[in-house]
Amino acid sequence: MAPVLQAFDPTLLVVLNLAGTFVFGLSGGLAGVRARLDVFGVVVLAAVVGLAGGITRDVLIGLPAQAFRDWGYLTIAILAGVVTLLAPAALTRLERPILVFDAAGLALFCVTGASTALDHGVAPIGAVVLGAITGIGGGVLRDILVREIPVVLRTGLYAIPALLGAAIVVIASARGSHNLAFPILGAAVCFAIRVAGVYFNWKVPRPPAAHDEGR
Amino acid sequence: MAPVLQAFDPTLLVVLNLAGTFVFGLSGGLAGVRARLDVFGVVVLAAVVGLAGGITRDVLIGLPAQAFRDWGYLTIAILAGVVTLLAPAALTRLERPILVFDAAGLALFCVTGASTALDHGVAPIGAVVLGAITGIGGGVLRDILVREIPVVLRTGLYAIPALLGAAIVVIASARGSHNLAFPILGAAVCFAIRVAGVYFNWKVPRPPAAHDEGR
Amino acid sequence: MAPVLQAFDPTLLVVLNLAGTFVFGLSGGLAGVRARLDVFGVVVLAAVVGLAGGITRDVLIGLPAQAFRDWGYLTIAILAGVVTLLAPAALTRLERPILVFDAAGLALFCVTGASTALDHGVAPIGAVVLGAITGIGGGVLRDILVREIPVVLRTGLYAIPALLGAAIVVIASARGSHNLAFPILGAAVCFAIRVAGVYFNWKVPRPPAAHDEGR
Repeated sequence: MAPVLQAFDPTLLVVLNLAGTFVFGLSGGLAGVRARLDVFGVVVLAAVVGLAGGITRDVLIGLPAQAFRDWGYLTIAILAGVVTLLAPAALTRLERPILVFDAAGLALFCVTGASTALDHGVAPIGAVVLGAITGIGGGVLRDILVREIPVVLRTGLYAIPALLGAAIVVIASARGSHNLAFPILGAAVCFAIRVAGVYFNWKVPRPPAAHDEGR
Repeated sequence: MAPVLQAFDPTLLVVLNLAGTFVFGLSGGLAGVRARLDVFGVVVLAAVVGLAGGITRDVLIGLPAQAFRDWGYLTIAILAGVVTLLAPAALTRLERPILVFDAAGLALFCVTGASTALDHGVAPIGAVVLGAITGIGGGVLRDILVREIPVVLRTGLYAIPALLGAAIVVIASARGSHNLAFPILGAAVCFAIRVAGVYFNWKVPRPPAAHDEGR
Repeated sequence: MAPVLQAFDPTLLVVLNLAGTFVFGLSGGLAGVRARLDVFGVVVLAAVVGLAGGITRDVLIGLPAQAFRDWGYLTIAILAGVVTLLAPAALTRLERPILVFDAAGLALFCVTGASTALDHGVAPIGAVVLGAITGIGGGVLRDILVREIPVVLRTGLYAIPALLGAAIVVIASARGSHNLAFPILGAAVCFAIRVAGVYFNWKVPRPPAAHDEGR
């Protein structure tokens, strides 16, 4: 099927997707190490988290999951798990390493998710949200599997950067630009806001407690 | 594709789906307020819970998720989250508000889920169960995300009304009736049984504990 | 669509799928009894766990969920729940009964998942992993719903037998053999390794704790 709106270069899309799979895989593997899983549990969690964003995107658009058609995704997701096992000390020497890899995965997948959605006839507003969901999917599944309240619910500074990153791609595409600069800008904006939000400890206000809370 | 069995008026179907999205969104937003999420977490949870039923239905039938093709669903789900934030006091002044909105969402989605399934060639028994799953999906996801055992597992008076509501639509359709009264009756029956069950505290018996429980 | 690679006899595939649905349903029903759910909660959990593997497989391949098109799956999954309720004492007299049924479901679904994936044009490596995911899906969902860390993450001896069972089917198919012996061998190998691993308490090593764990 010819794309309705081609967002940007297909090769770049694949590269960004593979990179997103790898960094989300690292975040999953590290979460597995922290949860004291055994070595195969760590690899499985890395693979699941690395692949979840792309699988979610494909299923929601109505496509067969690309993760099983192209061996590259599986290989790179498993590789991320193995890297976590071989080099946890190196990875964890970084400050808050799960955060960094998670933010990178969020940034890459919100852009590729929005772009893939546009290529398959999803409306612009739908493509923005679907991009954000693609970015958020891996982290949500990681948190559910290790039994935490998902990060996207704990802080608005997870959904907002994903929506912004996706919106940049969708707006550029709607204006007819397929310039490589826009997906890269979208990913950079998403990553920068996410990391800055954690680094400077920006807070989104909580709503007041419901009245029946104290009963 | 022409529908195999057209359950009822497509416009009513859209209206009921939008209404179901809104009330499930309210139940999600209120659950978010109770879980002390920040304002964006509340909106995201509202949107996720509002959209989950319809997305589950579409994915299980094998359709692209309508939630991203039609901007109305997204808009109304986000609106439900915003309403929760603006009026939590008013909403929580109602007795057990999450229950009421959750029951309304259950009622609306079991009917629209069964109807959409029939329109796409699912067998009658499958359409009953798929209708129930569509109704149950939002509440299950809400409970998983805030880390509770899902309500559908905690009480049989969640699955039973959803199955009954869906069955009314499927039976009417199988008998050739596309009268608007049947989906409305199905939703009303589902809602009434669900709310009455909680109000009168009807209990479904538990099975005896397994013998190896005490070891 | 004609199958790209037909893995083996379609009738056997259906029989194995129904058997997998039933045994996973038993494992779900027993988990429900242990979690002190009411009788409908037990039946719902049995049905969900019994159907989850096949639904996951169909959705990931891009097919409409067969569980709703063929009444047999629903019937047998619900039947598993009813059997759990009628005979919990008999079932639990078996040593570690959830384990045994779960291992049988894992064995059957990893083989049928890989085979169905091959029939729909998934690449060999993808079919191995998709087979394993099909096997793992029911148990993961069961554990998430009753709020445990999923067994697949807790022990590598869950993913490994599923991958091996699926790999036997994929390798046989790639070499042109559609002999019934291979899916049966695959299921037997998966079941034997899974049960032996638990029986002899084989351990997969854990990775060393991350350095920032103690901070």
